[in-house]
Amino acid sequence: MKKDFLYQEIANNIADKIRQGVFKTGERLPSVRMLSKEHGISMNTAKRVFLQLESQSLLQSKPQSGYFVSPLRFADLPLPEASRPLPDITNVEPSELIGSVYSNMGHGEKTLFSIGIPSGNLLPQARLKKEIIQASRTLREGGTEYEPLEGNAKLRRMIAVRSLAWEGNLNEEDLITTNGGMSALSLCLMATTRPGDTVALESPCYPGILQLVVGLGLQVIEVATHPVTGIEIEALKKVLHKIKVCLLVPNFNTPLGYCTPNEHKKQLVKLLTEHNIPIIEDDVYGDLHFGAERPKCCKSYDTEGNVLWCSSVSKTLAPGYRVGWVAPGKYREQVLKQKLLHFISCTSVVHEAVGNFLMTGKYEKHLRLLRHTLQENYRHYARIIAEYFPADTKISRPQGGLVLWVEFAKEMDTIKLYNYALKRQIVIAPGRMFSLQNQYQNCIRLCFGLPWTKELEFQLKQVGAFAKVLLR
Amino acid sequence: MKKDFLYQEIANNIADKIRQGVFKTGERLPSVRMLSKEHGISMNTAKRVFLQLESQSLLQSKPQSGYFVSPLRFADLPLPEASRPLPDITNVEPSELIGSVYSNMGHGEKTLFSIGIPSGNLLPQARLKKEIIQASRTLREGGTEYEPLEGNAKLRRMIAVRSLAWEGNLNEEDLITTNGGMSALSLCLMATTRPGDTVALESPCYPGILQLVVGLGLQVIEVATHPVTGIEIEALKKVLHKIKVCLLVPNFNTPLGYCTPNEHKKQLVKLLTEHNIPIIEDDVYGDLHFGAERPKCCKSYDTEGNVLWCSSVSKTLAPGYRVGWVAPGKYREQVLKQKLLHFISCTSVVHEAVGNFLMTGKYEKHLRLLRHTLQENYRHYARIIAEYFPADTKISRPQGGLVLWVEFAKEMDTIKLYNYALKRQIVIAPGRMFSLQNQYQNCIRLCFGLPWTKELEFQLKQVGAFAKVLLR
Repeated sequence: MKKDFLYQEIANNIADKIRQGVFKTGERLPSVRMLSKEHGISMNTAKRVFLQLESQSLLQSKPQSGYFVSPLRFADLPLPEASRPLPDITNVEPSELIGSVYSNMGHGEKTLFSIGIPSGNLLPQARLKKEIIQASRTLREGGTEYEPLEGNAKLRRMIAVRSLAWEGNLNEEDLITTNGGMSALSLCLMATTRPGDTVALESPCYPGILQLVVGLGLQVIEVATHPVTGIEIEALKKVLHKIKVCLLVPNFNTPLGYCTPNEHKKQLVKLLTEHNIPIIEDDVYGDLHFGAERPKCCKSYDTEGNVLWCSSVSKTLAPGYRVGWVAPGKYREQVLKQKLLHFISCTSVVHEAVGNFLMTGKYEKHLRLLRHTLQENYRHYARIIAEYFPADTKISRPQGGLVLWVEFAKEMDTIKLYNYALKRQIVIAPGRMFSLQNQYQNCIRLCFGLPWTKELEFQLKQVGAFAKVLLR
Repeated sequence: MKKDFLYQEIANNIADKIRQGVFKTGERLPSVRMLSKEHGISMNTAKRVFLQLESQSLLQSKPQSGYFVSPLRFADLPLPEASRPLPDITNVEPSELIGSVYSNMGHGEKTLFSIGIPSGNLLPQARLKKEIIQASRTLREGGTEYEPLEGNAKLRRMIAVRSLAWEGNLNEEDLITTNGGMSALSLCLMATTRPGDTVALESPCYPGILQLVVGLGLQVIEVATHPVTGIEIEALKKVLHKIKVCLLVPNFNTPLGYCTPNEHKKQLVKLLTEHNIPIIEDDVYGDLHFGAERPKCCKSYDTEGNVLWCSSVSKTLAPGYRVGWVAPGKYREQVLKQKLLHFISCTSVVHEAVGNFLMTGKYEKHLRLLRHTLQENYRHYARIIAEYFPADTKISRPQGGLVLWVEFAKEMDTIKLYNYALKRQIVIAPGRMFSLQNQYQNCIRLCFGLPWTKELEFQLKQVGAFAKVLLR
């Protein structure tokens, strides 16, 4: 705890100096080694100081050069408050609202700040096309056959190889492919619960997960989260006796964008494993880190097979391909059975194509580019929000991913804001969608996975202007 | 009833004459018009006589020429008995057996009489490849986007057009695409039931459906069926008060291959609609009719939107593509919601490719060829069974589809036969798989969707030889 205190104190100290202008925009900070010597702290602790400041957008890292003061005015925007959902099971499903927001998709004329996927022109479409053509030419029986139940071998091998980066150390045999990420979560929930069981979720939570869990006849407990570190372990402890499964999105969570610290992930795995509560881990944004390092997963700390690690290429390559997977640990047989029951096989042509694409090594290059674009976009958004949104607006500090959480003053009703903006062909996702409780009415989620253009900038400014009108 | 009696009498009379050699192999029978005049019956009744004889493989129809006596010795093989499952809810799931049989798939060296899909070399692979390439080139954003929730518009339009042939008269808006046929059934079950509800199924029943229903926490009532006409309506009436949903495979049912008469379908729709019990209709084999006419569906008689009609191209074009659909009638909103929850979108590239393929008109040509091959194969199988299987073997009379039900003497244990054959790399599907009750131990299902070769003929003879050994 003393260490935690120390690291926080040093970070605050530097943050203050940046805000006071002692360290100027663009200036290079002392190296990790120098900071470590200066304060008599370990290299790791010194590194945490910089990561913390980077996550607050006060610093930028440049590979092989060090840390520099961000040229950003929005660093002073306050963080949203930590969430405080009711500790009870509640179920006031905002179905109509979700239906309304969703129904705006596929309408080219609208600006969809509401979506949670990258825009098509940020994706390597030409290359993927080639892989599809190649796969349909080379696949046995032209891909007309069912796949083996576990799924495409190349794809599973490449996911296993990539898992080394986050110390997942998976083998091909640990993996089962699915029809995208939601399909993986759906299989895992069906494999580990029975209707009537209770699931713990982070609050706020992605509406698709809320609806899936409710749709399966399960009860939901929403757990308090911190906007920078994610689920609050003490809050989770209080409901452990009620829950059957815990479903988490620890890396670049939507809507808050936080990255749960590795130490927390480790604690979560230990705690839940001791109580024999499986963790379904949705890592679908894990590869979209803004920092230099790919974050670890709960699965990285899973020695007992208690974590069902799920991911997909829907947020990084091709939402429309429906290529996802799960490493279900000791729940392998149950998940395989659910896959057999519900859809037998994935679409072999696209799974082979993605497998081949991963083998070319072009995925890493694409990811670097995409991450850079997303981080730039986030900064554009934050700048516009700082300048054009109401004065007391708070924003999350996404450390990766595609979305930003905006918290207005308490009296704002973002369903009104949604309707107001919709008339001007702008779609935002009101905060109420992200809970089964009556909360987050003063919040919205904004997707920054759209190409940054003059027009988009104008639309975003408009959202701020509408908010000001409504708050008047 | 009198009419039923008359038509049966005339059919039996002709059947006797064929068996007695009065009508000789290859001989042309009187036309429908002549038969109608001769017996003073309607054209429709006369037609039914021929269809009945054709379904018994005593006659063959040749387009524009009439009906001819089949050159078949196996017409004398007796039919399996009508099924008599217990009228209670039972659940002795043969999971291990199903797992064992299934695990043989994807092993090239084994002969899989156990599967229920056509062999890859009966499918138009080259043409499909071209369509995939074309789709990945022309689709917006290269198919990387999510589809609209309802699914690919071209595909839905073409399914609607094709529904005219069976008087489904669907519109594009009536249809929702899915990841194959099982995915359609899964969405429909989740849309119309809650765990604990009871579902009526035909007995024997496709194991995938049994496992899906049990997997969703539903109760099963197996209903008696007749090997030629399908579900017995009187038996269904007795359990109506217990059931929430009825899931039927009326056209070329697996494993029995029967085609429920249109009159029965009409009665089923009337009866179940009156009791407000939705019918989930699995029509996945409907296009594989041996007779000249595509059979109607329950959906053809559905005026209230009470039938959820499901199908796919998995049995006719490409199992590995995962292209299926449902016309959910008045349950549209519920099914759409389940699709959104569980997988959001299908794989756009392959759905577009199949939509385009259907538009070329080449599907009909392919189906004609496939149907011809399947019917020829069925005759080969029946001939071998008549000559090489134990003397008292009974077989079903599939009027379409891919499979044949074989019933041995009561004392046969086909799980033993399965294990015996497996050692010789031959895989059959034991009857026990097709029920949650301890029945059909003396039956097997054989797939005739495999190319007929000298080797396959030898393997099939072997199955007969093994059966003789076990019955000794």
